[in-house]
Amino acid sequence: MTVNKDQLDEIEALRSSKSETSRVTVPELEKILYQPINVLDHGFVRVIDYMGDDSAIVQSARVSYGKGTKKISNDQGLIKYLMRHRHSTPFEMCEIKFHIKLPIFIARQWIRHRTANVNEYSARYSILDKEFYIPSIENIASQSTINNQGRGEVLSSEEASNVISILKADAEQTYANYESLLNESSEGGVLDENKSGIARELARMNLTLNTYTQWYWKIDLNNLLHFLALRADDHAQYEIKVYADAMLDIVKKWVPITYNAFDDYRVGGTELSAKEVNFLRKLIKGEKPSFEEEGISKREWAELQKKFDLS
Amino acid sequence: MTVNKDQLDEIEALRSSKSETSRVTVPELEKILYQPINVLDHGFVRVIDYMGDDSAIVQSARVSYGKGTKKISNDQGLIKYLMRHRHSTPFEMCEIKFHIKLPIFIARQWIRHRTANVNEYSARYSILDKEFYIPSIENIASQSTINNQGRGEVLSSEEASNVISILKADAEQTYANYESLLNESSEGGVLDENKSGIARELARMNLTLNTYTQWYWKIDLNNLLHFLALRADDHAQYEIKVYADAMLDIVKKWVPITYNAFDDYRVGGTELSAKEVNFLRKLIKGEKPSFEEEGISKREWAELQKKFDLS
Amino acid sequence: MTVNKDQLDEIEALRSSKSETSRVTVPELEKILYQPINVLDHGFVRVIDYMGDDSAIVQSARVSYGKGTKKISNDQGLIKYLMRHRHSTPFEMCEIKFHIKLPIFIARQWIRHRTANVNEYSARYSILDKEFYIPSIENIASQSTINNQGRGEVLSSEEASNVISILKADAEQTYANYESLLNESSEGGVLDENKSGIARELARMNLTLNTYTQWYWKIDLNNLLHFLALRADDHAQYEIKVYADAMLDIVKKWVPITYNAFDDYRVGGTELSAKEVNFLRKLIKGEKPSFEEEGISKREWAELQKKFDLS
Amino acid sequence: MTVNKDQLDEIEALRSSKSETSRVTVPELEKILYQPINVLDHGFVRVIDYMGDDSAIVQSARVSYGKGTKKISNDQGLIKYLMRHRHSTPFEMCEIKFHIKLPIFIARQWIRHRTANVNEYSARYSILDKEFYIPSIENIASQSTINNQGRGEVLSSEEASNVISILKADAEQTYANYESLLNESSEGGVLDENKSGIARELARMNLTLNTYTQWYWKIDLNNLLHFLALRADDHAQYEIKVYADAMLDIVKKWVPITYNAFDDYRVGGTELSAKEVNFLRKLIKGEKPSFEEEGISKREWAELQKKFDLS
Repeated sequence: MTVNKDQLDEIEALRSSKSETSRVTVPELEKILYQPINVLDHGFVRVIDYMGDDSAIVQSARVSYGKGTKKISNDQGLIKYLMRHRHSTPFEMCEIKFHIKLPIFIARQWIRHRTANVNEYSARYSILDKEFYIPSIENIASQSTINNQGRGEVLSSEEASNVISILKADAEQTYANYESLLNESSEGGVLDENKSGIARELARMNLTLNTYTQWYWKIDLNNLLHFLALRADDHAQYEIKVYADAMLDIVKKWVPITYNAFDDYRVGGTELSAKEVNFLRKLIKGEKPSFEEEGISKREWAELQKKFDLS
Repeated sequence: MTVNKDQLDEIEALRSSKSETSRVTVPELEKILYQPINVLDHGFVRVIDYMGDDSAIVQSARVSYGKGTKKISNDQGLIKYLMRHRHSTPFEMCEIKFHIKLPIFIARQWIRHRTANVNEYSARYSILDKEFYIPSIENIASQSTINNQGRGEVLSSEEASNVISILKADAEQTYANYESLLNESSEGGVLDENKSGIARELARMNLTLNTYTQWYWKIDLNNLLHFLALRADDHAQYEIKVYADAMLDIVKKWVPITYNAFDDYRVGGTELSAKEVNFLRKLIKGEKPSFEEEGISKREWAELQKKFDLS
Repeated sequence: MTVNKDQLDEIEALRSSKSETSRVTVPELEKILYQPINVLDHGFVRVIDYMGDDSAIVQSARVSYGKGTKKISNDQGLIKYLMRHRHSTPFEMCEIKFHIKLPIFIARQWIRHRTANVNEYSARYSILDKEFYIPSIENIASQSTINNQGRGEVLSSEEASNVISILKADAEQTYANYESLLNESSEGGVLDENKSGIARELARMNLTLNTYTQWYWKIDLNNLLHFLALRADDHAQYEIKVYADAMLDIVKKWVPITYNAFDDYRVGGTELSAKEVNFLRKLIKGEKPSFEEEGISKREWAELQKKFDLS
Repeated sequence: MTVNKDQLDEIEALRSSKSETSRVTVPELEKILYQPINVLDHGFVRVIDYMGDDSAIVQSARVSYGKGTKKISNDQGLIKYLMRHRHSTPFEMCEIKFHIKLPIFIARQWIRHRTANVNEYSARYSILDKEFYIPSIENIASQSTINNQGRGEVLSSEEASNVISILKADAEQTYANYESLLNESSEGGVLDENKSGIARELARMNLTLNTYTQWYWKIDLNNLLHFLALRADDHAQYEIKVYADAMLDIVKKWVPITYNAFDDYRVGGTELSAKEVNFLRKLIKGEKPSFEEEGISKREWAELQKKFDLS
């Protein structure tokens, strides 16, 4: 199990303790506070704390003394306007803190977003848990032939089973040797009284990249939306996208007006080049432009056809 | 008055509205939430929101599932250790949001700290209030003869009164002309029906640098402490130091254990160069080192004498 | 004059000194190195140093040992791909350093871009030059009635002349009082032997916001393009747009392939919301969608009409 | 070999190509430009480009039109002053770009410094080289009993040999399975015509954390010095310290005046708490203070004794 009995008790203790506050509070988010939301086979996302809500965005955009909100319709209009025109600073006035458990190779991708605060579980200080990410059969796919950094066809179940066996066996063997190098069992206890074992900061190098790590990760709403726009996208690697999807659901509970604007202008929206705008303009006028003559590449043309149902 | 009746009513409404939360809450900070703390003649600092407390620092340093705290003495020890060794990331896990009113020439100094989120009142969008900073007589001093970027002796009250007259007269005249350029009174209403007035984004250039502006400013605790170490220091300009001092008081209410560690290791602590360490080592051994022979400059020597009561 | 004889001599000395380097060098940029490019009435932009060129973007995207470039057509393709898909990190591998002179009210807007390195001329340490921005007649306009933070109609030359007189008179008077407060002429020399004058850090508060300041400003290409996308845009204030335009010309000399991609995908490109995509899709299919039914606001509709020549 | 024949040829081609520039140039750094400096068993550091030198720091601190330098003694004095008082922005005006090859578990530590630009070799796009870090016998040590995140005694050569065997065997096996999962040899060529293999973004998870990766890493001098202060320190893990040491040598060639100031004020300098200052003050006066009564912890006392040769 991802979270053990003691940990669940600690979580429950936090959830049941209530205080009074004059700060902005979001009941929908309070409901899931501290709770692990399962992602992948052993990972999770937990909301630990948050600051602000939709009204805090409006309040800071107006630099107001009070709540900053007027009618709901006005607030919606302002948030849509800010999102549309990429006036990003008011969205920075909301902040959220997560506790996340994730495989190391995904953590390496994730950490490239530099605009967050991070405290990672230290494998110099502590022994990592015996938990590895093993993909499920339906997520094991071959290299894509069109996207050099993506995956293509799902493998036959026979080949996929073989893949899973290899991943499991190697992870288990290297972890057993990790314990052996430490001369210490992950459940506690020296393995061989006649050996000294090596330092944790050295032993960790024997672990495979699908070993789970965990961190506290705190970010403002603007940078979180930027992260989600990239990582909840179809071009993102599946194993990070599932975390992004879980966080999108959280954003929806936290700041529903912002979520809708984000969904309309970013997730469902698109960008066009000058040449593509020109092409569409001609098309709408009833002309029959050719993508080559407009200077649009084949790849761009394929994407444009898909976006606008062109033939 | 700095904050008018309507604004006070809005503030009171926020203060009296209470919600239930499972988040970490700091009763000492709740007491002053939203309230303007007066700084300078028309400025203020207000705490709008906060995330975390001392326990949140411990929690993220330990990447724990629950509160992360054990005994208070352990928590104190850990926070002192983190502060001493400049392990700064756990302090980034606390966040605070202020509403600040301050003169523009101080805002220009302040904004050089880039690691905060800011929403400033827009003088392209709105008309600035008729409020200027005029120093009080005891804060009007001559250029320092030893510190090229500081102030020295306080002026005679006669010369100081003259300074105040000049500052007042120029601020009032340029503000009156600001209204005239806008063709609009700051209290509302067109001044001359036959004129069109100029855009706000242009008219603002006629204001003097002691005009007040305001902003929402949100920052994590680690970066706030860095700001305070520089700006609550005796070398800081008086007009920014008073804001830093007000915020230090707030930090003391918010995270008292961290405040004490900061006070011991940063505010009251000092840094020594390799040469100064060497000098002191000899002195303690009973030798009679000469600062020149140890490669210590006159200025450094003067500072060292002061720090350690040397003659 | 913006730059005086001594300064021009210093600039000429730097321009004529030549060294040999194995670093990537851009002949087109070397031609204008150190030279002030005039902006507004007393401002300028000077390129002081640069790192990298188009090939450096390709090199780091490929993490290559050598130049990283293959055929020019390949490099162009890669840079276009990176720009289109907002793979921004390779553009961060180029860096440029400017010396900029600009009015304070514009500097305040500019500094909101936090991802640059800045050293500003210190008015705590030195006396500011007697130079103010006074707009030319054709740039004096009334407040826009449609854009709350922009300008609208140009003023009659009579009203505009009056505006200029006010701006000039106030700037000159407050500057004269600045000298008086300092008890020092800007050309050097004490004004009144019987007075002490006030510290520079205090006196500066009497200056108006159109006083010129200057700074060294260093930024990577990715963040520079972000700055230019916002500030060379038609919605930007004229007084900052002219700086952005001057820098766009510099970017064109420095990284011509990147400039073209930026021009196509950002400057001339556009963003559409999910609803707008849907609307256009229907239009192209020959349907007659109504913007209201598609959930597009009046303001969005006006912008969409303009972009695609819709009626 | 770390760098192969083709790569060395590419490097040589860059080294021998010379251009003329009016930019600031550092002959000592030109001599080692592009050359790999070996670190660990397969790693390296290469300087790819640089901007500025000691004079550029002075130039920007003075916001000058020309070189900014006066006498060398003045420049030294200014740089020492800036370093001593942590006036960090002028040091941000120098920039350096490295190409670095390093083990993944060290890359994970390294990337926590967020203030750099990074382009890492993509294991989603390409196959990683068959190169792992295997520590040499003298660097294999047990867990420290006093520092929870460091290493203590060096192991007996027998136990160390065993450690090396385990690390080698696991790295080779997991790499062989990486190729098998990809169904592709690292030297090119499909392994089994009847299999499809899995995507690179998936296969990489089977590699161990001592596998080498590489990246382009660009940083300003101020942030580089901060990195070096932490990572060239004795408390840093050996495997990152050797990279920091190599970079310190480069800094010495690049900005020798800054290097000396850094060495005196940071590397060889120290920080004292208010309590420690107080203790030393008493000691120097001839009193016999007790560390317990001064509120200094045992650990602090041990450090203080070491710093000042106290008994």
